[in-house]
Amino acid sequence: MIDLRSDNVSGVAPQILAAISSANPGTALGYGADDFTARLRTRLSEVFEHELEVFPVVSGTAANALSLAAVTRAWGAVYCHQSAHVHNTECGATEFFTGGAKLLPLDGEQFKIGLPQLETALAEAGFGLPQRAQPCALSLTQATDFGTVYRPEEVAALAAAAHRRGLAVHMDGARLANSLAAVQCMPSEMTWRAGVDVLSLGATKNGTMNADAIVTFKPDIAAELRFRCRRGGHVPSKMRFLSAQLIAYLEDSLWLRLAARANHAASVIAAGLKDVPGLELVAPVDVNEIFLRGADEIFAQAEQRGLLFYRRPRRMVRLVTSFQTSEADARACVEALRSSSSGGPA
Amino acid sequence: MIDLRSDNVSGVAPQILAAISSANPGTALGYGADDFTARLRTRLSEVFEHELEVFPVVSGTAANALSLAAVTRAWGAVYCHQSAHVHNTECGATEFFTGGAKLLPLDGEQFKIGLPQLETALAEAGFGLPQRAQPCALSLTQATDFGTVYRPEEVAALAAAAHRRGLAVHMDGARLANSLAAVQCMPSEMTWRAGVDVLSLGATKNGTMNADAIVTFKPDIAAELRFRCRRGGHVPSKMRFLSAQLIAYLEDSLWLRLAARANHAASVIAAGLKDVPGLELVAPVDVNEIFLRGADEIFAQAEQRGLLFYRRPRRMVRLVTSFQTSEADARACVEALRSSSSGGPA
Amino acid sequence: MIDLRSDNVSGVAPQILAAISSANPGTALGYGADDFTARLRTRLSEVFEHELEVFPVVSGTAANALSLAAVTRAWGAVYCHQSAHVHNTECGATEFFTGGAKLLPLDGEQFKIGLPQLETALAEAGFGLPQRAQPCALSLTQATDFGTVYRPEEVAALAAAAHRRGLAVHMDGARLANSLAAVQCMPSEMTWRAGVDVLSLGATKNGTMNADAIVTFKPDIAAELRFRCRRGGHVPSKMRFLSAQLIAYLEDSLWLRLAARANHAASVIAAGLKDVPGLELVAPVDVNEIFLRGADEIFAQAEQRGLLFYRRPRRMVRLVTSFQTSEADARACVEALRSSSSGGPA
Amino acid sequence: MIDLRSDNVSGVAPQILAAISSANPGTALGYGADDFTARLRTRLSEVFEHELEVFPVVSGTAANALSLAAVTRAWGAVYCHQSAHVHNTECGATEFFTGGAKLLPLDGEQFKIGLPQLETALAEAGFGLPQRAQPCALSLTQATDFGTVYRPEEVAALAAAAHRRGLAVHMDGARLANSLAAVQCMPSEMTWRAGVDVLSLGATKNGTMNADAIVTFKPDIAAELRFRCRRGGHVPSKMRFLSAQLIAYLEDSLWLRLAARANHAASVIAAGLKDVPGLELVAPVDVNEIFLRGADEIFAQAEQRGLLFYRRPRRMVRLVTSFQTSEADARACVEALRSSSSGGPA
Repeated sequence: MIDLRSDNVSGVAPQILAAISSANPGTALGYGADDFTARLRTRLSEVFEHELEVFPVVSGTAANALSLAAVTRAWGAVYCHQSAHVHNTECGATEFFTGGAKLLPLDGEQFKIGLPQLETALAEAGFGLPQRAQPCALSLTQATDFGTVYRPEEVAALAAAAHRRGLAVHMDGARLANSLAAVQCMPSEMTWRAGVDVLSLGATKNGTMNADAIVTFKPDIAAELRFRCRRGGHVPSKMRFLSAQLIAYLEDSLWLRLAARANHAASVIAAGLKDVPGLELVAPVDVNEIFLRGADEIFAQAEQRGLLFYRRPRRMVRLVTSFQTSEADARACVEALRSSSSGGPA
Repeated sequence: MIDLRSDNVSGVAPQILAAISSANPGTALGYGADDFTARLRTRLSEVFEHELEVFPVVSGTAANALSLAAVTRAWGAVYCHQSAHVHNTECGATEFFTGGAKLLPLDGEQFKIGLPQLETALAEAGFGLPQRAQPCALSLTQATDFGTVYRPEEVAALAAAAHRRGLAVHMDGARLANSLAAVQCMPSEMTWRAGVDVLSLGATKNGTMNADAIVTFKPDIAAELRFRCRRGGHVPSKMRFLSAQLIAYLEDSLWLRLAARANHAASVIAAGLKDVPGLELVAPVDVNEIFLRGADEIFAQAEQRGLLFYRRPRRMVRLVTSFQTSEADARACVEALRSSSSGGPA
Repeated sequence: MIDLRSDNVSGVAPQILAAISSANPGTALGYGADDFTARLRTRLSEVFEHELEVFPVVSGTAANALSLAAVTRAWGAVYCHQSAHVHNTECGATEFFTGGAKLLPLDGEQFKIGLPQLETALAEAGFGLPQRAQPCALSLTQATDFGTVYRPEEVAALAAAAHRRGLAVHMDGARLANSLAAVQCMPSEMTWRAGVDVLSLGATKNGTMNADAIVTFKPDIAAELRFRCRRGGHVPSKMRFLSAQLIAYLEDSLWLRLAARANHAASVIAAGLKDVPGLELVAPVDVNEIFLRGADEIFAQAEQRGLLFYRRPRRMVRLVTSFQTSEADARACVEALRSSSSGGPA
Repeated sequence: MIDLRSDNVSGVAPQILAAISSANPGTALGYGADDFTARLRTRLSEVFEHELEVFPVVSGTAANALSLAAVTRAWGAVYCHQSAHVHNTECGATEFFTGGAKLLPLDGEQFKIGLPQLETALAEAGFGLPQRAQPCALSLTQATDFGTVYRPEEVAALAAAAHRRGLAVHMDGARLANSLAAVQCMPSEMTWRAGVDVLSLGATKNGTMNADAIVTFKPDIAAELRFRCRRGGHVPSKMRFLSAQLIAYLEDSLWLRLAARANHAASVIAAGLKDVPGLELVAPVDVNEIFLRGADEIFAQAEQRGLLFYRRPRRMVRLVTSFQTSEADARACVEALRSSSSGGPA
């Protein structure tokens, strides 16, 4: 049984589990007024090389919706890719937290927002016209929902276009660590140096226990989030247990090492499937997600061989590796799909 | 240093911490589709002697606001006590999740909603008049924000009045276990048998690691919550870690034993302060909260003696014990206040 | 039949009806981009002796809720009197338009907010604490819902206290013209000179055909309203017909003359009832509303004598005069109540 | 000067203006409890041959957003055409009134939603999945935003597909009268007999003075609207003046006669431009809107010749006729464009 249904089927990295236990003795003030949260802020500032504010939360949806709400008026619009998680798979959370802003989906190559598409949208947006939703934010999903990665210079170009028209830039970093590991750049290069104002850190899929965080480099965004998080029920009282996890997550580049492991497993799978007839990669495998198109029966056989993954419409499947996916798992996955493709008995 | 600032300054009970570690190996589907969550549902049904649905969440605010939103129209009104946490200390979360319903505060003896007050409010509410917010729910805080407890028959009388006019009944069980331990009744007697439709379980203050839950005995409320929780960012993907905690919380009546410990410490303090001059109990100490009124200098001295607690307006302080407060802590607390009262050197 | 159920049972003043017809010929751009709306802005600026922006709307509820939403964050709080229309009789419109802010009712003499009550509330509000709704606005109902009037100096004192803590000041001028006529002061003295930032003009009850308006003296509030009004469906496309009415409303002090007529009728009634046994004035009659307390049978008899008015809980009734109420009507009203009081045959 | 910028630049039809004056004498209860509103309900029931409820409002945006909010949960989705007014030109009003539902744009021939497109969207919508916005309503713009008309059988087919999956069907009848006049069918055939549950009547563009209305054939939708309208500030107190207009609007088929006049003018223009070089009709001219594509200079010259119309992106212009557009106006419009096209001096 190899479980590639999502990276969130994984458990908690041992170092992070240990950090939870270490944080337990004694008492600590609730709602983030504890020492762990203060240290987390300091630690993140070092990692990102910038003053920042951090709001630990328990889900990527919360991180995204709260971040976008902090930069988007109720009559605002958020540009995102048409495949973006914030648009398709969060039950309208951003619409809820903003009080009814619009998500306007854009298109582009490799499931990334294209700069021309963004610029056309901005040109026809109707800034200042009261009958039009007013563009307030650009949301980039990193990695994209098809596992491709924006290079820092791509982020920078899109962010610059957005900033020119007064939009804030949000990065949904659900797989930020995987993206950093893939691109091999500094966290700062991928974020604030490229123009990102507010970031969903995206730690849960990569080894924490529902410990995620909003990171913002802008004090005015932070000021809003203080109230928005509380009002949203997103300030767990024993915050120290989130913060302690995130400290461990950053320690000794654990986050990047965990992500590199997941990426490696995915690259082994992608390489192994290159010459398998009947299977086609839908997108380049930049991080830890593999999207395949192929015949139903191939996938049905692979399932019988114990491979767990999700079906998508239009003959597509998604496989996601995590820090728990070993190289042996990856090879077994390849083998299962290869055998299924050749039609041999399961 | 004795920390009585809140029960949420405490850590995680050892049995619950162990449960987290036990849940870690292997993979599990996210968002509640795991075995732990299924078992939690079964376990809670046994404990409450009723079919129910459970939605693990990470804060009491989330539990309260989502519960109330599931039973209150946007143009609705929720009756609560004027001291209720949902009204005063959750940054308008219920207003947010309902889309702008009104919280209408009521009064009564011992910081509980009085039946006459509720009935007058219902009589003058203007049911059916489009200019008036329409009463949709009654929210009872158990224990109250002054540490008093509604007896099951009090809950039943208030709930019956509410149900007669079509209102749903919510219990904010932030200190439900403490209340059950105090009253020595079955969970069912305090909840659905008394008319409660939806319940904030309130586990965090009593030993879990930000694992709280909404419990509802009504399938139609559950149907709403499925979407409301997701949309609110309140479905942590690695849900098993919340559910595993809550299973351990219920195992062998751990929740009641932890609560009884906190209650005992509070009763020791209350008893010990009875004859201390200059200090007055603001409310009966039914559970684990003690509210005192007294001279500023007494409290200032007690603080210098290492007692940690919160000041409130109008010469009042609040002390809260938890499952971590030992009898020795309780006695030391009494001693610190007694000495401060007599004006001896700190 | 004398109809004192409300001032909104009245029709449209003839001068205003004529203005509607005059505005009809030709074409005009929609949504406020017409000449009438531009002229209205100029005219109002002269009347109020201040630069301002005006947003014609069709109901007092819209004017109030939009005004308050423009100055109140979703996690904000609005102080109002506990009898305020915005709190009790607008179906939670302000909560809706703000996205779930709280209305916090205050008390005071003569149904006006008291300065000490406001100051205590501000002192205990918890500015900056994320668990507390943050006070954003003070809303004054002028005249109050019991027909009493804030003097300019009272407005100024309350507004100063609010401004000191960063709150905006809104006046629900549902009966502003009546209040101006009563106090005999300039519009500016009652509004911006006293600290009012945004105003519901309140023309409908005083002779227009559902032509009301928001007036604001602050450009940043106006900037918000441009979008909030449109998004709320509150920018009627043929705006010229609202603006033309309001121009006529202000012409030659028509608004003050209409209001004075209503006030006079009410004062005749109040004076006439002074010595009627069994009837007690609930509040001073400053403008065009009379609140009486008395025996049910008196009111029942008065109804049989053809007097139309509204019952209120607790043996109270409300009579409201309008610009259409003649002095003869007023005398007939007195006569009907006097006869009913003495128990003679209806 | 021929003003074809919109049909809402027109004034009020004389019969309707007369009705306003007739409604003025005497007093009438506010908020729709008057005789005019009762008669309007009866009259509409006759015209539509069905029991119904009517809510007069003052803008099409209000009618649309309130209607859709009454049938759409906050986590819901509304299908509309990608060119729909509700999606593009109402400042997110539907998102606001629903509390953050999504508008999901669909495509199709002639700017109408295509049945296959709707069916694919429904098939992939993810009904019951909590991460997906749940389809609640289909909104049809009649006539479309490019002036094409859904035939009753097209409405019926789309509505049937929507109803099969539990969606409600809304018609934005901003130009319903024009559509009825074009198709020459009964109001019932275009609405409830074809499956429409709730309707924006769309009277303003066709001769009323900001008197529009929501009409619903379903009592449960009406029950919601009673509160939603009030809460939205959309219950003008002197409602009789809206209702009186709408009664006159329906009297002796005035609405259809006014619409037929506008349609006729548009058809004269469309016919006259058929052979003009350099101008291309973007869509069939079913009602009173003409969309042309052509060279910038042609349009610039036409403007100099006194023709008023709106530019659209991508070399497109829109001309809209109204009941006030005479046949002479139409011919003059043709002449202006023809001369501009041939490049002669303006």
